Amino acid sequence: MILVVKPEATPEQIDHIIQRIEELGFRPHVSRGEQRTIIGVIGDERKPQAETFGAIPGVEQVHQILKPFKLASREFHKADSVVSVGRVRIGGGHLAMIAGPCAVESHEGLDRIAAHVKKGGANILRGGAFKPRTSPYAFQGMGEEGLRILRDVGDKHGMPVVTEVMDPRQVGLVEQWADMFQVGARNMQNFDLLKEVGKARKPVLLKRGMSATVKDLLMSAEYILAEGNEAVVLCERGVRSFEDSTRNMLDMSAVPNVKGQSHLPIVVDPSHATGRPDLIPSMARAAVAAGADGVHVEVHDCPEKALSDGPQALLPDQFARLMQDVRKLALAVGSSID
Amino acid sequence: MILVVKPEATPEQIDHIIQRIEELGFRPHVSRGEQRTIIGVIGDERKPQAETFGAIPGVEQVHQILKPFKLASREFHKADSVVSVGRVRIGGGHLAMIAGPCAVESHEGLDRIAAHVKKGGANILRGGAFKPRTSPYAFQGMGEEGLRILRDVGDKHGMPVVTEVMDPRQVGLVEQWADMFQVGARNMQNFDLLKEVGKARKPVLLKRGMSATVKDLLMSAEYILAEGNEAVVLCERGVRSFEDSTRNMLDMSAVPNVKGQSHLPIVVDPSHATGRPDLIPSMARAAVAAGADGVHVEVHDCPEKALSDGPQALLPDQFARLMQDVRKLALAVGSSID
Amino acid sequence: MILVVKPEATPEQIDHIIQRIEELGFRPHVSRGEQRTIIGVIGDERKPQAETFGAIPGVEQVHQILKPFKLASREFHKADSVVSVGRVRIGGGHLAMIAGPCAVESHEGLDRIAAHVKKGGANILRGGAFKPRTSPYAFQGMGEEGLRILRDVGDKHGMPVVTEVMDPRQVGLVEQWADMFQVGARNMQNFDLLKEVGKARKPVLLKRGMSATVKDLLMSAEYILAEGNEAVVLCERGVRSFEDSTRNMLDMSAVPNVKGQSHLPIVVDPSHATGRPDLIPSMARAAVAAGADGVHVEVHDCPEKALSDGPQALLPDQFARLMQDVRKLALAVGSSID
Amino acid sequence: MILVVKPEATPEQIDHIIQRIEELGFRPHVSRGEQRTIIGVIGDERKPQAETFGAIPGVEQVHQILKPFKLASREFHKADSVVSVGRVRIGGGHLAMIAGPCAVESHEGLDRIAAHVKKGGANILRGGAFKPRTSPYAFQGMGEEGLRILRDVGDKHGMPVVTEVMDPRQVGLVEQWADMFQVGARNMQNFDLLKEVGKARKPVLLKRGMSATVKDLLMSAEYILAEGNEAVVLCERGVRSFEDSTRNMLDMSAVPNVKGQSHLPIVVDPSHATGRPDLIPSMARAAVAAGADGVHVEVHDCPEKALSDGPQALLPDQFARLMQDVRKLALAVGSSID
Repeated sequence: MILVVKPEATPEQIDHIIQRIEELGFRPHVSRGEQRTIIGVIGDERKPQAETFGAIPGVEQVHQILKPFKLASREFHKADSVVSVGRVRIGGGHLAMIAGPCAVESHEGLDRIAAHVKKGGANILRGGAFKPRTSPYAFQGMGEEGLRILRDVGDKHGMPVVTEVMDPRQVGLVEQWADMFQVGARNMQNFDLLKEVGKARKPVLLKRGMSATVKDLLMSAEYILAEGNEAVVLCERGVRSFEDSTRNMLDMSAVPNVKGQSHLPIVVDPSHATGRPDLIPSMARAAVAAGADGVHVEVHDCPEKALSDGPQALLPDQFARLMQDVRKLALAVGSSID
Repeated sequence: MILVVKPEATPEQIDHIIQRIEELGFRPHVSRGEQRTIIGVIGDERKPQAETFGAIPGVEQVHQILKPFKLASREFHKADSVVSVGRVRIGGGHLAMIAGPCAVESHEGLDRIAAHVKKGGANILRGGAFKPRTSPYAFQGMGEEGLRILRDVGDKHGMPVVTEVMDPRQVGLVEQWADMFQVGARNMQNFDLLKEVGKARKPVLLKRGMSATVKDLLMSAEYILAEGNEAVVLCERGVRSFEDSTRNMLDMSAVPNVKGQSHLPIVVDPSHATGRPDLIPSMARAAVAAGADGVHVEVHDCPEKALSDGPQALLPDQFARLMQDVRKLALAVGSSID
Repeated sequence: MILVVKPEATPEQIDHIIQRIEELGFRPHVSRGEQRTIIGVIGDERKPQAETFGAIPGVEQVHQILKPFKLASREFHKADSVVSVGRVRIGGGHLAMIAGPCAVESHEGLDRIAAHVKKGGANILRGGAFKPRTSPYAFQGMGEEGLRILRDVGDKHGMPVVTEVMDPRQVGLVEQWADMFQVGARNMQNFDLLKEVGKARKPVLLKRGMSATVKDLLMSAEYILAEGNEAVVLCERGVRSFEDSTRNMLDMSAVPNVKGQSHLPIVVDPSHATGRPDLIPSMARAAVAAGADGVHVEVHDCPEKALSDGPQALLPDQFARLMQDVRKLALAVGSSID
Repeated sequence: MILVVKPEATPEQIDHIIQRIEELGFRPHVSRGEQRTIIGVIGDERKPQAETFGAIPGVEQVHQILKPFKLASREFHKADSVVSVGRVRIGGGHLAMIAGPCAVESHEGLDRIAAHVKKGGANILRGGAFKPRTSPYAFQGMGEEGLRILRDVGDKHGMPVVTEVMDPRQVGLVEQWADMFQVGARNMQNFDLLKEVGKARKPVLLKRGMSATVKDLLMSAEYILAEGNEAVVLCERGVRSFEDSTRNMLDMSAVPNVKGQSHLPIVVDPSHATGRPDLIPSMARAAVAAGADGVHVEVHDCPEKALSDGPQALLPDQFARLMQDVRKLALAVGSSID
């Protein structure tokens, strides 16, 4: 960490800054330039005490040098992590193809859609039982009944299942029925929930928040890792922007950006990122070409009757064509689908 | 709601759209223009069924006409709501002056700061016992012990107290010790938490999420109101933007924007919005001039030793001067501080 | 266009709205619903008069139904446009590989870099002679001398050349020396410049502004097309966002988004979008997989001595490897490089 | 400037970095920490050479310490600058009240509106003769004829006049007729235009670009100042954001943010910032309370017949009431209107 001292700081203030650095367990390294005095702070920047340097009188700027996360970092774990969800591997060249409806709506409906996506080439089935809805008057999900259906249909079609958990109180229940937790974008900084899934024994699909930087996303992963759960898969699903013709803005560069600084796998969700079926196949192709460890898409066989997010769902045959393209691109970039 | 039909839609598709509208309990109203056919959908747009119109084959655009919230709307409740927190009223010309440290750190520390802000003119004391921190390695708050201290210090100085609740499991405990819940920006769309505080009997300070529109904020308030808790105070605290010299971007226009469409009071938090003590007093003045129902600021008597957010805290004498300015401006715009 | 009338509007106001619609040369179509009266406005929404509907007393909302651009639209020109730059075609499956240094710095330097990028597989040479720099104290480009060098080096290596034009007064000069104009992001809404290149006879590479929506970009293209120049190639180069680890945020979905509504080719510039050499190759691959009509990258053989944007330049061998990957992906998606 | 060296950098790379620093005319100051080597670069960071440090092999991060502008900085000129436009002073406690229609539409029309705003309390008349319009089919302004009308009406009502200049070729003409140039948001980084108005002898109202940071705005001011024109007034007019209920997001904190680091006056334009007459008065009050040096609002006596931006114009009586409020607040914060 580097502290830049205000030009008008007094010698007493500079002495005090140095003293505080030492009190907090760091070592100061002072360089006096023509225009500014600069103080290097030597020690572990992730220590909680580091936060207060900016509040010491006379300090003008604080520049952080080291990454604030550790367990999630590439320095800590050099090789790509490979996360197993049932028998499906994600990372290290293995692509996750996660597909299914936004919400579990009925046993028959999910069974039909699961058959379609399995045939198309998906290897993980998704479906929401607890739904975070902007409106309190919208369908809130089937709850436990939805979890049972998801388990049953996943088993029937031989696909592990992933479903969203929204409340720390649901973690035990979801762990019982699902193969992977999803923590949604709105809960990326629901720290009590992160701690709870961090204590669980199932892998976690952690979606990027709508206004989260890549660093914020990795800090949230750090919460889960710090509790002992090493099986974290990140998901880029678009962030809020001024562009009003898509639901969110897909930050495709988050894929290599994450991979440069972290060992964790990252998949892309073009369904929530764009909100538009006409853009989803192109973005799924781009994700695989960019080096993502998989794709997450919503599929429904009758979008106009879906209870949630119908307008952004792909039809089964659109999904099947998307998978054909994805396989070609996977081949071109040297990755494969379990 | 208005549906715009694709130019290439077949007559059968148009018939099917009309049929779906009727099946879902709405009435269609078709107008055929030169370039597009347009179908008005008559009925309550807030009904969950309305969501799927965009997924009917042949529909190109969906334009929503009515607001998606009801209980929070000005149409539903014409007069300004006045929310009471202990003996302090917020709204209808009564300003809340909420001040205190970011986190409760000790009994002595909070007592000292409370004496300062009380003397400066604050009428509600704030202090966090459960802290949402970006890093798992940072100070996470004193928990229940912090709640007890806050209650005790608030009583001693005759100020009602507000504190953050982050987890649905904490709601009962927080309700026992505090006069008002705070739901933080990161939890604005933690819907299970919103439902839980909606069932409680204490007022709620609901902070705007970092990427939430004003409409999103009002939809989250609707969650609380829909559970029966009518005492909701909104808080503008800045949103994420590309401007990198402030912590967030304070959307001051949210104040009149909310007031035009909702009866709920709204206060402004310039501390989190700017993250810079040099900008806070100016923004507090602007908030009162804009018609906000109060201001929320962080104050610490030794920011460099604060366990959380020290660099953005005002010193007690800076707060006292801010209050003098605020009183002048309140007078100019005809509001008052209980 | 659809006007939603305020619930409290008087019958006289509604009559007045209808009268104004007719005065302005449109036909009104009134539907009275339970909660709102809605008036369809039939006629060409692109007529200048349409703008004022929102200002008629009693009008609450205006919903635009048709696209505000015409010549740039897919409806106007169904097939993909193919733009020729010298002998290189862009669009309709033909990829532009535009590469070169940020700025022309010397004849020898450009010659060396041109040899590298030609060998790597670029088919168009770029280099700035007029440079838009944030600081007035930074290198502003070599001007006309730079244009001459660019022409000469392009001819030597058999590559057409593209260079930025910043000022309407430079259009004639640039047209004399270059094969293609570049209008930079900062000038996307410099309407006098757009008109001037619209009157010229050379193709235009129009870069998306840092805060421009896809619709804004197409409206700026419309300015050029409306002056008679049909040879416009769009360029996605990232937009401003809160993400602070990349220079801009690359909106990859702009590629299929543009292609759905316009016949114009679109290329992607990962150099300016990310500002980071470690992310550029991955984003170039993703662009081709997404269906972009080419890629625009900055290459320098000694970035640390570049006079502009050195830190984001690829080295020649990095560019050569990128081209190998791009060729594989072009094959996979069925496009080719002239 | 501070360079952080990559952990894997070789001693040769570090030597090379040091050598480059010296070659470029700076002095290096090396500190070797436990985890990273850090090199302070001593010298003028505004020198063009400084840009390339990030491209030297082995450099991981570059932290800028000094502001990149000089003439615009508070360090360079400690006291508030006061800019005179005709007999009206702006800055140092003197408020500009700039009002008028978006565009000059006719002599009679402007005369009528000028009479209204003069009576309401405006001290500078605005009106566009050259209009930057998103659509090539929209009204583009009256050009020179509009400038003559503006001059004539301004003289008649005793108000200096400000009008937009969009093209370097128009600067001479506009200077002949107007008292102050306006450089619009879309042209904030049209550097040739900035240089041209920098050479002129009339003051400049420089509007913040839609995606410009406060630093970018000050860098654009530096362009004008560097050419010798010291009479620059900045204008905050909102930036692009995800909030879709206002035209832009008014960054009110830009007012104290600018004032802390620059001596230049800054006014606020709530008309373009919000695009909504119902929000403009509240934001004008807030601007004055925040310490802005004036307000810029659009007024039209018949918005529904305005040729540009009618929907965001205030009616004359709304403007008169706004001025009453503004005067009260100016009194409360100690500023005055010439």
